[in-house]
Amino acid sequence: MSDTHALDTLIETLRRLPGVGQRSAQRMAFHLLQHDREGAQLLSRALHTAVTSVRHCEQCHTFTEGELCGTCRDPRRDATKLAVVETPADQAALERTGAFRGRYFVLMGKLSPLDGVGPRDIGVHKLIERACDGVVQEVILATNFTAEGETTAHVIGQALRSRGLTVTRLARGVPAGSELEYVDLGTIAHALVDRR
Amino acid sequence: MSDTHALDTLIETLRRLPGVGQRSAQRMAFHLLQHDREGAQLLSRALHTAVTSVRHCEQCHTFTEGELCGTCRDPRRDATKLAVVETPADQAALERTGAFRGRYFVLMGKLSPLDGVGPRDIGVHKLIERACDGVVQEVILATNFTAEGETTAHVIGQALRSRGLTVTRLARGVPAGSELEYVDLGTIAHALVDRR
Repeated sequence: MSDTHALDTLIETLRRLPGVGQRSAQRMAFHLLQHDREGAQLLSRALHTAVTSVRHCEQCHTFTEGELCGTCRDPRRDATKLAVVETPADQAALERTGAFRGRYFVLMGKLSPLDGVGPRDIGVHKLIERACDGVVQEVILATNFTAEGETTAHVIGQALRSRGLTVTRLARGVPAGSELEYVDLGTIAHALVDRR
Repeated sequence: MSDTHALDTLIETLRRLPGVGQRSAQRMAFHLLQHDREGAQLLSRALHTAVTSVRHCEQCHTFTEGELCGTCRDPRRDATKLAVVETPADQAALERTGAFRGRYFVLMGKLSPLDGVGPRDIGVHKLIERACDGVVQEVILATNFTAEGETTAHVIGQALRSRGLTVTRLARGVPAGSELEYVDLGTIAHALVDRR
């Protein structure tokens, strides 16, 4: 119906969000128009502002609004250590531990040949350039411990080691506070092999 | 960090969407900024357009961009029959059957005392006014067959019957094409009672 054009367009556009199908999109559109028009206006503005002002940090590739992100600008960070993570969310998780004071490179993705994501798409050439600046001494691979994250770590690790850099990987093992009875076998097996 | 203000605001605002938590909001924001900036711009515009142009039909209460929706403007619809549905999506489902040529009243919700949604919030007083226009002869309650939908139908049914209107409810029964073995007991019991 022509008189619901704006609503139809909204539903169709909401479907571009990851994980949102026809029904969720409809539910979101109805909710916003029926119960939260203020939220819809705020979201409209937030989207526009983010798209026009958020770009990639020239050094670590994460999202930032300036040329360099806050972490890369911070002179107190240890420039000899470079942690490679998949996403800004992973970086935030590492930051929350307070155990790492070095710098970061954010891949903004992971290798996924099945989805057509190759080394170039996640900026591996930029990472190599960054890691070979003469200051970085150790690259810590902190990609996820999923199949794709492991592959990514493997490929990047090979490329960096062949250039003479020290490359380490986050330790695999039993999570803190967990009981062996409930830990999956693969994790226990890895923890056994890597025992110290 | 101050240099991710626009991103933080976007994530926070995406959380206003129903069913979207912190992680989904983050994933959506990263996806839009990393892979679909055009989609983000389109969504920003679609939200703004929808909020400024979509309102409620003065007669049936559904979403429309004019004073009256397409269904209410259509002179070929049978004005003596009024179907009461919960949402525009339910109305669309009924329309797809092609079996109903009357008019609608869209509650845009359902009675839900636990969530503080009373008769006034779903416009029951407007429905009564609409149904008592002297033209409507039969009100068909097509709210969902959930606990809340049934309660809504019961309350509305009582109010309309007390004003001398004929009120009917969609038939409960075994869905077309289904095998009894796989139909839940409550449905079979209802189908037995309402056998014809």
